[in-house]
Amino acid sequence: MEMPKANPFVLDRKAELVSRLLTVLPEDAVIHAEAETRAYECDALTAYRCPPLAAVLPRSTEEVSKVLAICHDMGVPVVPRGSGTSLAGGALPTADSVILGVARLTDVLEVDYDDRIIRVQTGRTNLSVTGAVEADGFFYAPDPSSQLACAIAGNIAMNSGGAHCLKYGVTTNNLLGVTLVQMDGTVVEIGGAHMDSGGLDLLGVICGSEGQLGVVTEATLRILPKPEGARPVLMGFDSNEVAGACVADIIKAGVLPVAIEFMDRPIIRITEDYAKAGYPDCEALLIVEVEGSEDEIEEQLSLIEAIARKHDPVELRRSGSEEESAKIWLGRKSAFGATGQVADYMCLDGTIPVSELPRVLKGIADLTKQYGLRVGNVFHAGDGNMHPLIMYDANKPGDLELVEQMGADILRLCVEVGGCLTGEHGVGIEKRDLMHDQFTGADMEAQMRVKDAFDPKWLLNPAKVFPLDVTEARRG
Amino acid sequence: MEMPKANPFVLDRKAELVSRLLTVLPEDAVIHAEAETRAYECDALTAYRCPPLAAVLPRSTEEVSKVLAICHDMGVPVVPRGSGTSLAGGALPTADSVILGVARLTDVLEVDYDDRIIRVQTGRTNLSVTGAVEADGFFYAPDPSSQLACAIAGNIAMNSGGAHCLKYGVTTNNLLGVTLVQMDGTVVEIGGAHMDSGGLDLLGVICGSEGQLGVVTEATLRILPKPEGARPVLMGFDSNEVAGACVADIIKAGVLPVAIEFMDRPIIRITEDYAKAGYPDCEALLIVEVEGSEDEIEEQLSLIEAIARKHDPVELRRSGSEEESAKIWLGRKSAFGATGQVADYMCLDGTIPVSELPRVLKGIADLTKQYGLRVGNVFHAGDGNMHPLIMYDANKPGDLELVEQMGADILRLCVEVGGCLTGEHGVGIEKRDLMHDQFTGADMEAQMRVKDAFDPKWLLNPAKVFPLDVTEARRG
Repeated sequence: MEMPKANPFVLDRKAELVSRLLTVLPEDAVIHAEAETRAYECDALTAYRCPPLAAVLPRSTEEVSKVLAICHDMGVPVVPRGSGTSLAGGALPTADSVILGVARLTDVLEVDYDDRIIRVQTGRTNLSVTGAVEADGFFYAPDPSSQLACAIAGNIAMNSGGAHCLKYGVTTNNLLGVTLVQMDGTVVEIGGAHMDSGGLDLLGVICGSEGQLGVVTEATLRILPKPEGARPVLMGFDSNEVAGACVADIIKAGVLPVAIEFMDRPIIRITEDYAKAGYPDCEALLIVEVEGSEDEIEEQLSLIEAIARKHDPVELRRSGSEEESAKIWLGRKSAFGATGQVADYMCLDGTIPVSELPRVLKGIADLTKQYGLRVGNVFHAGDGNMHPLIMYDANKPGDLELVEQMGADILRLCVEVGGCLTGEHGVGIEKRDLMHDQFTGADMEAQMRVKDAFDPKWLLNPAKVFPLDVTEARRG
Repeated sequence: MEMPKANPFVLDRKAELVSRLLTVLPEDAVIHAEAETRAYECDALTAYRCPPLAAVLPRSTEEVSKVLAICHDMGVPVVPRGSGTSLAGGALPTADSVILGVARLTDVLEVDYDDRIIRVQTGRTNLSVTGAVEADGFFYAPDPSSQLACAIAGNIAMNSGGAHCLKYGVTTNNLLGVTLVQMDGTVVEIGGAHMDSGGLDLLGVICGSEGQLGVVTEATLRILPKPEGARPVLMGFDSNEVAGACVADIIKAGVLPVAIEFMDRPIIRITEDYAKAGYPDCEALLIVEVEGSEDEIEEQLSLIEAIARKHDPVELRRSGSEEESAKIWLGRKSAFGATGQVADYMCLDGTIPVSELPRVLKGIADLTKQYGLRVGNVFHAGDGNMHPLIMYDANKPGDLELVEQMGADILRLCVEVGGCLTGEHGVGIEKRDLMHDQFTGADMEAQMRVKDAFDPKWLLNPAKVFPLDVTEARRG
């Protein structure tokens, strides 16, 4: 993956930059020794690495504002970083950039159960947002797999989802307001604990903007009362296509499960070897979970099982207890870890209209044969968010390139059926050159003019989201 | 309400403009005779009127693109217009502008029940979107009171809501994609029938942008399967404050009714005289409606009634039949019409955090005394979307000015408690000068830079949304 050339003028002024940063931050918040900046050389897309010029760890919106004003003044690119769990290289530094980490911005600023909101600093981890309210019976709904580690800042940057987002929506559906620090240091308040927005509603374009428009330091989030109960049903099918058709039928019927998770044979085998969840030997598994009172659970599961029966399931196992529920989820939750035990893998992230599931699963199978690579599918089927895991050997020359090529073909297929390059991981550096496949020149120009409006010098999170040729031309 | 001075250079070139418009549109689609342009002199905020220079009625995205390119080239302002039902003056012309009406763009372009979407041209009325799918058991959820007349284009421009939006969300929650024609004629595709967006997600900022960023000609909308059944309960209380507290408790409990409608004593009396719905004689009424299967309805209503009982209701009447349901809704649905029978009125539109309902209702009562005007409250309480109706006599000199002053005070109160100037009617010309009360200079500058990005010459829908002084300075 090509990265832009470092600006030699910026590299030359490192000493000046560091001394200016030290006028606004305490010493332990400015990391500039080469051995230490290496800690920030990559995120969870570890195939690409580059140590930044420096890293800063501010503790407040005010400190973030001062840091950005200095970098803006000196023309230094800034890469915002949550917890560094991006699978798309969203927080990959360039050699001439400052990493702005929000890890020390972890405070809960306000909890209001009457209006069901929590306001937090965005370095707080996803799970610890729920942690702050669960004793009172509330939770924060979006639940990325990395929720123990990932920061709300990153969730907002990538518009993160999770297994339970079918019912509750992704980050953008649970975000009510943000404090945004713009590249020149200006602090802007967007949205709040109320419906709608006067004037232009900037919240939607901030959410999912991958650090291109500013640094989000505080967020007002929707919290929800915990449901009375939840119960999954495990379904096995004879083929991916039939399982895909069953998902489409459930969605079409208007039932709203909390989660519909899909696993295909390679993933079933790998996780069963690893986690021994007692999954049946079949081509495709669905885990469908519903929530509510005991009566509501019964009613919804009966309806869902009736739909499943029309697709001749080889297994239909409704959980009868907490223990059985945990066992049904065990395999699914171990899937990524188990795959990591048997191979290196690249996790893709595309979304498609749900009705296209059978067609896209067939297309992935065809590509798997064509490329001779091993692919497992484990994903949030209910909202059409695919996560094919392409397995490979990182030590085998040429394998990574082949994986990238196959990954691009799969994502092009997603776009071709009316879908999108990304669901919850973002474009990052991983998919930036595929943007041409999704968007026309005019479509992309409209996006870039918004980038211009927030960050006219294109200093924020360089070389991400937009194709490199386009970015370079824009920066002039 | 002050309007910008007409550009004499534009007025002088009317003949040239009309002849150029006639090269791209048929004769019946270009309205330029003074007697005929008068039909477009106002929208539903009839207190303000100004005939446009001309009006055009294109039939396709291509025609819209050609019209905008001509106006862009000649520096002619353009006011997009749906059905002209705006209560905030969102489609009020200026003397030097062209009204671009979408009334002839009414086609259904695609219906897909598997993915539960419909794609329409945006001149189609809200109700006729449901009309296109209801025979197959589906509906389009947002339901503004004007749904028989209002166009999807206007719904998108104002991010319209309605009584049933508590459960289903407002327009932005049901909009998946748009075709946007920019002021220079460029056509851009944003979003589609899939979750998430690659790159910057522009859909959120387009929705609710009040014609400031472009003309939306086509829209992909979420359709939903019709629920099995629905049933309301009517509740009467001794005071507005107690009714407000009951709403807050229902929301806090996490039950999700489809609608929670609020009516205070003045509105109860006016509608009861008019519609004879059999409402009790009390200070405040709530209509709470739930949906689902018979079991689900029973369970939810029992829970809601238990909450209501803690607030000592003077009436608690659960509908037992279709007829009773219709009667409970009859008064609410007649409220605006009934009020129009007894007085002129201005309908406000602010949103607040639901927990602030009692405080804001008390504040409105205080202002009512202070101004000596009659005010009725009838609104979507569940999502904190207030609609105070300030009654007055349009023929009494000074009354309108008093109403505007009181309206501004009420909206400032909404902002003060952490709310927002608008819920579903938009800022339009009505609230543009209150934007200073909601936003800091930096907040507004961020919005205006996005306006710059889409419409650098500020030709689209002039004198709306942003305060006039700011707009004039921006246009140079």
